[in-house]
Amino acid sequence: MRRALELARQAFPLSDPNPRVGCVLADADGRVLGEGFTQQPGGPHAEVMALRDAAARGADVRGATAYVTLEPCSHHGRTGPCCDALVAAGIARVVASLRDPNPLVAGQGFARLQAAGVQVEVGPGAQESREMNIGFFSRMIRGTPWVRLKVAASLDGQTALANGRSQWITGDAARADGHAWRARAGAILTGIGTVLEDDPRLDVREARVARQPPLVVVDSRLQTPGSAALFQVPDRPVWIYAARHDAAAEAALQSRGATVVHLPGDGGKVDLAAMLRDLAGRGVNELHVEAGFKLNGSLLREGLVDEFLVYLAPKLLGPGQGMVNIGPLQELDAAVALEFVSVDRVGADLRVLARIPGRAAF
Amino acid sequence: MRRALELARQAFPLSDPNPRVGCVLADADGRVLGEGFTQQPGGPHAEVMALRDAAARGADVRGATAYVTLEPCSHHGRTGPCCDALVAAGIARVVASLRDPNPLVAGQGFARLQAAGVQVEVGPGAQESREMNIGFFSRMIRGTPWVRLKVAASLDGQTALANGRSQWITGDAARADGHAWRARAGAILTGIGTVLEDDPRLDVREARVARQPPLVVVDSRLQTPGSAALFQVPDRPVWIYAARHDAAAEAALQSRGATVVHLPGDGGKVDLAAMLRDLAGRGVNELHVEAGFKLNGSLLREGLVDEFLVYLAPKLLGPGQGMVNIGPLQELDAAVALEFVSVDRVGADLRVLARIPGRAAF
Repeated sequence: MRRALELARQAFPLSDPNPRVGCVLADADGRVLGEGFTQQPGGPHAEVMALRDAAARGADVRGATAYVTLEPCSHHGRTGPCCDALVAAGIARVVASLRDPNPLVAGQGFARLQAAGVQVEVGPGAQESREMNIGFFSRMIRGTPWVRLKVAASLDGQTALANGRSQWITGDAARADGHAWRARAGAILTGIGTVLEDDPRLDVREARVARQPPLVVVDSRLQTPGSAALFQVPDRPVWIYAARHDAAAEAALQSRGATVVHLPGDGGKVDLAAMLRDLAGRGVNELHVEAGFKLNGSLLREGLVDEFLVYLAPKLLGPGQGMVNIGPLQELDAAVALEFVSVDRVGADLRVLARIPGRAAF
Repeated sequence: MRRALELARQAFPLSDPNPRVGCVLADADGRVLGEGFTQQPGGPHAEVMALRDAAARGADVRGATAYVTLEPCSHHGRTGPCCDALVAAGIARVVASLRDPNPLVAGQGFARLQAAGVQVEVGPGAQESREMNIGFFSRMIRGTPWVRLKVAASLDGQTALANGRSQWITGDAARADGHAWRARAGAILTGIGTVLEDDPRLDVREARVARQPPLVVVDSRLQTPGSAALFQVPDRPVWIYAARHDAAAEAALQSRGATVVHLPGDGGKVDLAAMLRDLAGRGVNELHVEAGFKLNGSLLREGLVDEFLVYLAPKLLGPGQGMVNIGPLQELDAAVALEFVSVDRVGADLRVLARIPGRAAF
């Protein structure tokens, strides 16, 4: 199962929006007969890749065990059911990390295997597989993406100077690492403030990707300029969420290839919770947020943030712009509670992954 | 030498203001004959402790090697020269980590040993021994203590709410760890702002100590109330640095056992650089600063801070009070540059040790 989990990592971000799944076929002595991981949407799943690999090796998989990091699918999606392929190949036993939360599968894969006489065990590698697919689980169970808010700040928590300057607080290694996190996301989200102030491209440049993640802009009043650098990224969908109609502005944005979605909420702002549901409908598992102080604060106040990806640079900036526009709080107990998931050195900087307690319990 | 360095750690904070030194006596086969570490001031140094230990074990140390983490002393201080004790005992070889920066020793210990026919090697464990004694080296070479500024903040860099509330941002484990850092310091420094706002004791409660480190209060206008909680710590020296004379206030503070030192600087403030020199004169090797935003900023702006001991709590507070009152900066290049020395989980919090590059190069 360790190897199957390693293989699943190779499905980042290729398989998106499908789950990241790895599969190893082994004989009774534990000899590997074939291995694979889920390919691009419409391409073969991990199990089929492993069966093909075994065939290419000339290995006989009859009576073998399939170790797979998620329940084999039982439905006809863009590919045939993996269950049927395993049964047809004569696999005797399936060890799976987790039940697939997709309502089209959700235990039916296991049932189908058992009905065909295949022995089924569930559990090994469950936690790691779930973490790897936390966005997929979130979309399937909560109907919204897993929301990861990325911040680059000085050790004293400043994301920009008082005059707005913010490029670059962290170093090259942190920037490259940040691109790897962008790459695994189903979409990248920013706000109109960041577009107007920094004019970023928000694409993946420092990591290898087969496709650029779609860019989401929260732009209540449709102020994104047609000349914005974000339109320079080829073949990257741009989804602009607005709260008001403006035919001329919409036409201009559509002519740049953007899709405009109207989701008006309170106070002339975009309904952010509705936006998340809409993004899940578009197949976004993990939403990577790179926005400013204000939009970060709005997402946080509305309870829509799941975790923070914070890069801390070894420097002090003094009073400037903080990470999130919340408060002012009257009591320390009113703080947004987090728990540290991991802390790593990335070049000269620190990368801190912190999660809001309980958010992963869906 | 590894063992000698371990022994040196046991001299924290017992030996203060003397250096933290460990010594192991071993025969030609590497068998340990005796070991020791420096005791309280006036007590035996590491070498003498190791010789006594060997005697207690009935070991013959003639011809043995002494591994010692600092050059054996050559002068008559409160104790006789360790060199002479080693020579008298018939030690054939001394392996020392470092030359003693104390101008009363500074190579004379090695010279004296060599003159007596003892073979001397210098170098093993140098870096670790120096780090352990960085305050002693600072005081001996720079004439000022090593200044470590402790901050407890939320992940977004806030040390207090906008309304001033700051107790408690970090958890129990971080608090206990902070007390261990207080314990190793030669003095703890705070400002009158913290005294008036938080009324802290600033003693060591959650770590075992033979003596409480002296408390230094930067109190330019002698506003420390006689009723302050800091006076409740028994047998703990309190040194109040002031910029103006006020006979009544001084008398009141002296009646509480405080020592008042006048070091006026610019603008009616205490001359902080002069204060550091004065503290070195009082034998302070490591100065542990627990002050507010303003005094932290003053120390930093005047180039008097060597490193930061930062506890980051897993929470977000939004706009409140930052770590240091510097800036507002106009350019990111004007940031105070640091380098991360270590990052550790302490309970639910993070402990980050960050140093101003080049500050340790004295």
